[in-house]
Amino acid sequence: MTEQLDELADLIRDERLRELRVALDELHIGDVVDFLERLGVKDRAVTFRLLPKDTAVEVFDMLDQALQHEIIEGLKDGEVAHFFESLEPDDRVRLMDEMPASVARKMLRHLDPRERSLTNIVLGYPSGTIGRQMSPEFVAIPEHWTVRQAMEKVRRAGTDAETIYTLPVVDRQRLLKGVVSLRDLLTNDDEQIVEALMTEADSVDADHDAEDAARRCADRKHLAMPVTDKEHRVVGIFTVDDALDILERAESEDAARHGGAEPLHRPYLSTPVLTIMRSRVVWLLVLAVGATLTVQVLDIFESTLEQVVALALFVPLLIGTGGNTGNQAATTVTRALALGDITTRDVFKVLWREVRVGLTLGSVLGALGFVLVGLWGPGDGNPWAIAAVIGLTLVSMCTLAASAGGMMPILGKKLGADPAVFANPFISTFVDATGLIVYFMIARAVLGL
Amino acid sequence: MTEQLDELADLIRDERLRELRVALDELHIGDVVDFLERLGVKDRAVTFRLLPKDTAVEVFDMLDQALQHEIIEGLKDGEVAHFFESLEPDDRVRLMDEMPASVARKMLRHLDPRERSLTNIVLGYPSGTIGRQMSPEFVAIPEHWTVRQAMEKVRRAGTDAETIYTLPVVDRQRLLKGVVSLRDLLTNDDEQIVEALMTEADSVDADHDAEDAARRCADRKHLAMPVTDKEHRVVGIFTVDDALDILERAESEDAARHGGAEPLHRPYLSTPVLTIMRSRVVWLLVLAVGATLTVQVLDIFESTLEQVVALALFVPLLIGTGGNTGNQAATTVTRALALGDITTRDVFKVLWREVRVGLTLGSVLGALGFVLVGLWGPGDGNPWAIAAVIGLTLVSMCTLAASAGGMMPILGKKLGADPAVFANPFISTFVDATGLIVYFMIARAVLGL
Repeated sequence: MTEQLDELADLIRDERLRELRVALDELHIGDVVDFLERLGVKDRAVTFRLLPKDTAVEVFDMLDQALQHEIIEGLKDGEVAHFFESLEPDDRVRLMDEMPASVARKMLRHLDPRERSLTNIVLGYPSGTIGRQMSPEFVAIPEHWTVRQAMEKVRRAGTDAETIYTLPVVDRQRLLKGVVSLRDLLTNDDEQIVEALMTEADSVDADHDAEDAARRCADRKHLAMPVTDKEHRVVGIFTVDDALDILERAESEDAARHGGAEPLHRPYLSTPVLTIMRSRVVWLLVLAVGATLTVQVLDIFESTLEQVVALALFVPLLIGTGGNTGNQAATTVTRALALGDITTRDVFKVLWREVRVGLTLGSVLGALGFVLVGLWGPGDGNPWAIAAVIGLTLVSMCTLAASAGGMMPILGKKLGADPAVFANPFISTFVDATGLIVYFMIARAVLGL
Repeated sequence: MTEQLDELADLIRDERLRELRVALDELHIGDVVDFLERLGVKDRAVTFRLLPKDTAVEVFDMLDQALQHEIIEGLKDGEVAHFFESLEPDDRVRLMDEMPASVARKMLRHLDPRERSLTNIVLGYPSGTIGRQMSPEFVAIPEHWTVRQAMEKVRRAGTDAETIYTLPVVDRQRLLKGVVSLRDLLTNDDEQIVEALMTEADSVDADHDAEDAARRCADRKHLAMPVTDKEHRVVGIFTVDDALDILERAESEDAARHGGAEPLHRPYLSTPVLTIMRSRVVWLLVLAVGATLTVQVLDIFESTLEQVVALALFVPLLIGTGGNTGNQAATTVTRALALGDITTRDVFKVLWREVRVGLTLGSVLGALGFVLVGLWGPGDGNPWAIAAVIGLTLVSMCTLAASAGGMMPILGKKLGADPAVFANPFISTFVDATGLIVYFMIARAVLGL
């Protein structure tokens, strides 16, 4: 497939656009999207203009918001309105979040009144909430209706609604009473009352955190979840495919921050080199500033280093192992937080586990290090003294690193930050500095310096 | 919520089981699952036995396979058969993968013939393929049928089928011709021919890699995808909630390996400390062995170190920065591979991008390092010489680290391994060793040692 897409890219480069148009016609729509995501801004604009109108709308709907925004920028006003109108209200709001407020307002004005008011409902919730991601186009069924009545409404409203497979059931005040699946309506008798078929609704408040709601939707395998207001009236519905988008975005963010960079929020090959560089440079600088601590620590112990230069040989090994132990713990805990397996209230449970894990790991590595350095290490006649220093440092460092690594993501979340921000690269820097202090203190004590 | 769950745990500890039973009755089923996932093996077995029979079956279906297996182990044979029978064929196969083959075979023998033959279909595909994860219970519609006939079949088969919302359309040879959504059937005329309503099917071969299929299902927002055999006959269906499970598992694996540990495949709090320790110790040892390279490199340059001890002060800072740069690149590329934004064929595109990014980052950091060390650094009268060493090392190290970091995951994938295995911790170890060589070579050249 990639090979084929590369051949298409060659057609752009050689400006053989007529051939490109024919080739695009033969691709599955998902492959056209994959192709556009591999191109730079200009090539993408050129290619997009070659698509037949219907295909263009479908393709536009499937692109990342960042790429939609770039395409919009390259189009004339009339065309813009057309694509903007083609989006669902929730997707429209997400695209608007990418654009300058003035442009977004202008585009909103061009919408027909119904679409505009639907869009405004979603716009009414703060970004980051599930209200901002839900669809306001749902089909609610009164609880006293029969299956026949319900099916009638589903058939009528079927084409516009976000989903008709999970239907909120409401009372006369439009308060949410439960949900009924289309499957249950279809496999039951026409005269059955909906109330008898509905199940307890797993709903979510419109002000609820979007990622958390998406995780719940995915964990509990709902095709859709009703979204309610403070009075428990249904205001929207939130489907599993939107949950997938939110989770994928959240996981890309976690992954990037774990690696010590800001997320790109767009496909790698479509991102200019300078944008990639910018996503990394601030983190690198912050971490490098943090790492100057290690220079200061070593500076303090410079006399110890001068007396026993052999101690310097083990510095990368020791801080590397400490960093690895810390990363392991931080990664496990960050992931458990993201999956909802633990919450910030579990801080002491986590600490107690990580202390034990760190101590066990440290004992294994420390014993091994002691024997190996004792047998083959440097030490000018007394290798076992340096071996003891290495062994003891590994035990303390692993315990320290695992505990700190387990605590940092929880601390980060408590402070309202993304847990991943406080995780891996910071752990390494922290463990580097504190670990070195431990190392030289133990060395001074054991070697009597 | 966590608070409430902790109170329930107190009830177990105090053996107030009658109160626990009442409290469990009042929880939403999803919360019962969350609660069980926070308990140790014994407490979970105790609690599970308190659940009413219907709830127990539902709860059992929602647990991780590893926890299902532990519960099964604690039950009597008759009970086992009951729970085993309650699972869908695809979930049953996943649970069987957790159990010793002899136990699995025994349980298979207790199933009724229909369930057993369905399970055997799924068992027929190698693990890791989508055939192993699909459901063999689908509703296929012949293309020449009317909407009325199709709806009749959906109503009849509706309760057993995995999904009725996406329906494969087949010809007389049962070859896949397209898919039709239940929504389209419902919103069209009863006498319409299905062929006129169906859309192109995005199907997947049963032997296809499960994670790749799941990613496609999620990316293209399908509620379900038909699974076909070599002759393009429909053999099963694969729904978005199974895709979610596969992706969550894959992402947990990636996250764990990024952090240099093996995935737990079970909730953190329910995992014994020794199991956590085992998931980490092998990686730590392998990485520590790799890190002994740094000891050897430093040993070779020990005379240089003895002449200018100040060089030792910058070792953690330099290798830390190199490691961070490498991690950033590795993380971005691993994620792009996972999302399908790039493939292994893009290796030179990635290399060329990362060389440029690394060089830019290195220049910024190098210039900064040169000035700062020159102004305030050590150096016994000639700080600018050491400053030059640091600056030049940062430029080369960042370029090297970004390129190696970008290449490793692709190399890993080409070799058929999980890209994440070859990523971050290995990068750090590699960059530590090579970076030190670069550092001391530059130092010798610049300082004329």
